Amino acid sequence: MALSSMYTDTTVQRRNDTAGRMQPMNLSEIFQRAELIDELGLVEQLLLDRTHSTSALLSASGAYTVAAGGKRLRAGLVLLAARFGAYDFERASHPAVAIELLHTASLIHDDLVDNAGQRRGRTTVHSRWDKDVALMLGDYLFAVAANELANEPDPRIIGFYVQAVQTMVEGELNPVTQLAPLDVALGQYYRKIGAKTAILFEAACKCGIAVTGGTPEQIEALGRFGYDFGLAFQIVDDVLDFIGDELLLGKPAGNDLREGTLTLPLIYAVSDSTTPILNELARTARPDPLRIPQIIAAVRAAGGDASALFEARNLIERAKSHLTIFPPSATRRTLAELGEFVLNRHQ
Amino acid sequence: MALSSMYTDTTVQRRNDTAGRMQPMNLSEIFQRAELIDELGLVEQLLLDRTHSTSALLSASGAYTVAAGGKRLRAGLVLLAARFGAYDFERASHPAVAIELLHTASLIHDDLVDNAGQRRGRTTVHSRWDKDVALMLGDYLFAVAANELANEPDPRIIGFYVQAVQTMVEGELNPVTQLAPLDVALGQYYRKIGAKTAILFEAACKCGIAVTGGTPEQIEALGRFGYDFGLAFQIVDDVLDFIGDELLLGKPAGNDLREGTLTLPLIYAVSDSTTPILNELARTARPDPLRIPQIIAAVRAAGGDASALFEARNLIERAKSHLTIFPPSATRRTLAELGEFVLNRHQ
Repeated sequence: MALSSMYTDTTVQRRNDTAGRMQPMNLSEIFQRAELIDELGLVEQLLLDRTHSTSALLSASGAYTVAAGGKRLRAGLVLLAARFGAYDFERASHPAVAIELLHTASLIHDDLVDNAGQRRGRTTVHSRWDKDVALMLGDYLFAVAANELANEPDPRIIGFYVQAVQTMVEGELNPVTQLAPLDVALGQYYRKIGAKTAILFEAACKCGIAVTGGTPEQIEALGRFGYDFGLAFQIVDDVLDFIGDELLLGKPAGNDLREGTLTLPLIYAVSDSTTPILNELARTARPDPLRIPQIIAAVRAAGGDASALFEARNLIERAKSHLTIFPPSATRRTLAELGEFVLNRHQ
Repeated sequence: MALSSMYTDTTVQRRNDTAGRMQPMNLSEIFQRAELIDELGLVEQLLLDRTHSTSALLSASGAYTVAAGGKRLRAGLVLLAARFGAYDFERASHPAVAIELLHTASLIHDDLVDNAGQRRGRTTVHSRWDKDVALMLGDYLFAVAANELANEPDPRIIGFYVQAVQTMVEGELNPVTQLAPLDVALGQYYRKIGAKTAILFEAACKCGIAVTGGTPEQIEALGRFGYDFGLAFQIVDDVLDFIGDELLLGKPAGNDLREGTLTLPLIYAVSDSTTPILNELARTARPDPLRIPQIIAAVRAAGGDASALFEARNLIERAKSHLTIFPPSATRRTLAELGEFVLNRHQ
C-alpha cells in the first residue's frame, strides 16, 4: 500500500498540482532534474575506491556492502547543501563520501548488535562472513570515513562529522522503553531517532554548506533543515514497518516489533486506543512475538500509522521553513521535492 | 624471570653504569625524572572526563576501562615528542588523550574478536557487560578520540591519527599464518606488529612534535623513532608470553599460543631447532592447545626468546639513532631511558 494513497490532505495534492503530474517523482527523477546523477555516479565510484584495503577480507566485504547501495540520499544532501555556496564538486565530494561511509559503517555494527539477517534485501555482513569481519569492517569504514575529511582545511567539517558519530553511537544504547505516558514515550522516541538518524542528515547538510563557504547562519539553517528532514525520514521508515511491502523493503514487516523496538505508530496507537492488546502493551512495553499480526492490525485500526505520517508531514514543512533565509532557487525546490519523496516512499 | 637477567650484553651494563644504579628504572621513575607525572595526571583526568556519556552504560563501562589504566606510555611519548618543539601542554594534551582513547577502543574490540576474558588482570568489557556494550563502547571511544582532534588547527595531526586507525584495523585481519620459510614468517610478523602496535607509537610521536611546530624532517625522524620503538615494545610483549609471570602480566602465559597467534620467539625457535615438536609446528603452523607447556619449553630451549630480545634491543638502538638530528637534551635522554624500560619490563 502506497503511503500517498492513505494520505490525502491538500498539501500532497497541491504539490502534485504544482509539479503538473499526478504521481510523485521518484528519487532518480528528482536527482536527474537537479543534474546530480553524474556527480552521484562519481561518489559511487569514490565509495568503491575507498573501501579497497590491503586485507582481502575487508576489500571483499567492503565492496559487497557498498554495492548493496542504498539511496545515497545523504550524499545528495551534501552536494545540494554545497550548492547554496560557491559550489566545487571536488571539495563537496569528500564529506559526501565520508557521510555515506559512516552511514554504512554504523549499519554494519547495528545489524551485528541486532543480529539482523537481512538489510536492503541482502544478507548482512556478519551473516555472510562472520561477526569478526563485521566488527572490523565497521571499524575500518569509520576510519576511512574520518580519513576522507583529514585534508579538509576548515576544521568545522570534521567537527560536525565527529559530533554525529558520537551522538549516533550513544543513541544505539538509549532505546525507547516506555509506551506511556505519551510525553515520556515521545521524549524517548524523538531522542532515539534524533541520535540514530536525524543527526547524520544534519551533519550532511552542515558539511555541504560549510565546505563551500557558508556563514554560521546558513550552516545553522541547513542543519535544522537536515535534522527535521531526518526525523521525518525515520518516522516514515517506522510507519513502513507497519504498512510496507516486504519485497520492496527487503525485510519482513513487523521487524521492529519482533526486535522489541517501539516506534511512533505504536506510541500513538497505544495513546489513542482502548483495544485490550494495546492496553496491555501500554503497561508492559514488550510486544509478544507470537501476536505481531494482531498488534499490527490494532495499530492500523487505531490510526497510529496515519497519525505518525501526519507528524512526518509537519516535520517536512518545518524543515522547509528553515530554508526561507535563502532566496528561492532550483536547489531549494529540489530539497522540497526530496521532502515529498520521503513522505511518499514505499521503501 | 626478569628479562634483564637473561640479557647481559654491554649496552645494558653501560646504561646502568651511566645512571649510577644496578637496577633499571621503572616507568614512574622515568616519568618523575622527566617531570611528566603532573601532566600525565591531568591526561588521566581528561580521559575520565571524555568517557562521560549521556548513556549510563557507556559512562560506566568507559570509566571502568579507563580506570583499568595501562602505562600511558603512548601519552607520555606524545608529550615528550612535543618537548622537541615550542612546548604547550594544552595543545599537546589533545593528541595525548586521543591516542590513549584510540588505544583503549582498539583493545576493547580486539578482546571482543579474540573473546579474551581478562586484560591487565581485569575482566574485559564484553565479559563484564556484554558483546553489544563492548562493540558500542569501542565505537564511542573511537568517535570521542577523533573529536578530541577536531579543533586542532593543523590538519596533519588528524591525518597521522586516522592513518594509524586505518592501518590498525587492517592489521587485525592480517594474521601470521606461516612459521616457515623464515623470510615469509618474518615478513608476516613485522607487517602484523607494525599495524597492530608500531603505527600507533609512530602516530603518538608525530602528533606530539607536529602540534608544537615540528619541521617535516623532525616529524619524520620522531615517527621513525616511534615505529621502531613500537616494534621493540611488541616483540618484548610477545617474549613475555613465553617467559612472563602470569600475576604480573594479568593474563596466563602461553596465551598467544592458545589463541593460535604466532610470534617472533616461536618463529626463531622453529627456524633454529630440530626438535620434533617444533618441526611439526613449522609444517602445520597450528599449536596444539594441549601441548602448550611442551612448546614453551622447546622455544626456550632453542633460544627463541633470547633471539627475539636481541632483535628488540637492535630495534631500540635503531630507534635512538633516528633522534641524532636533535641535539642532546633531557628529552632525548628520557626517550633512551624509555627504550631501556621497554627491554627490561616484566609486564
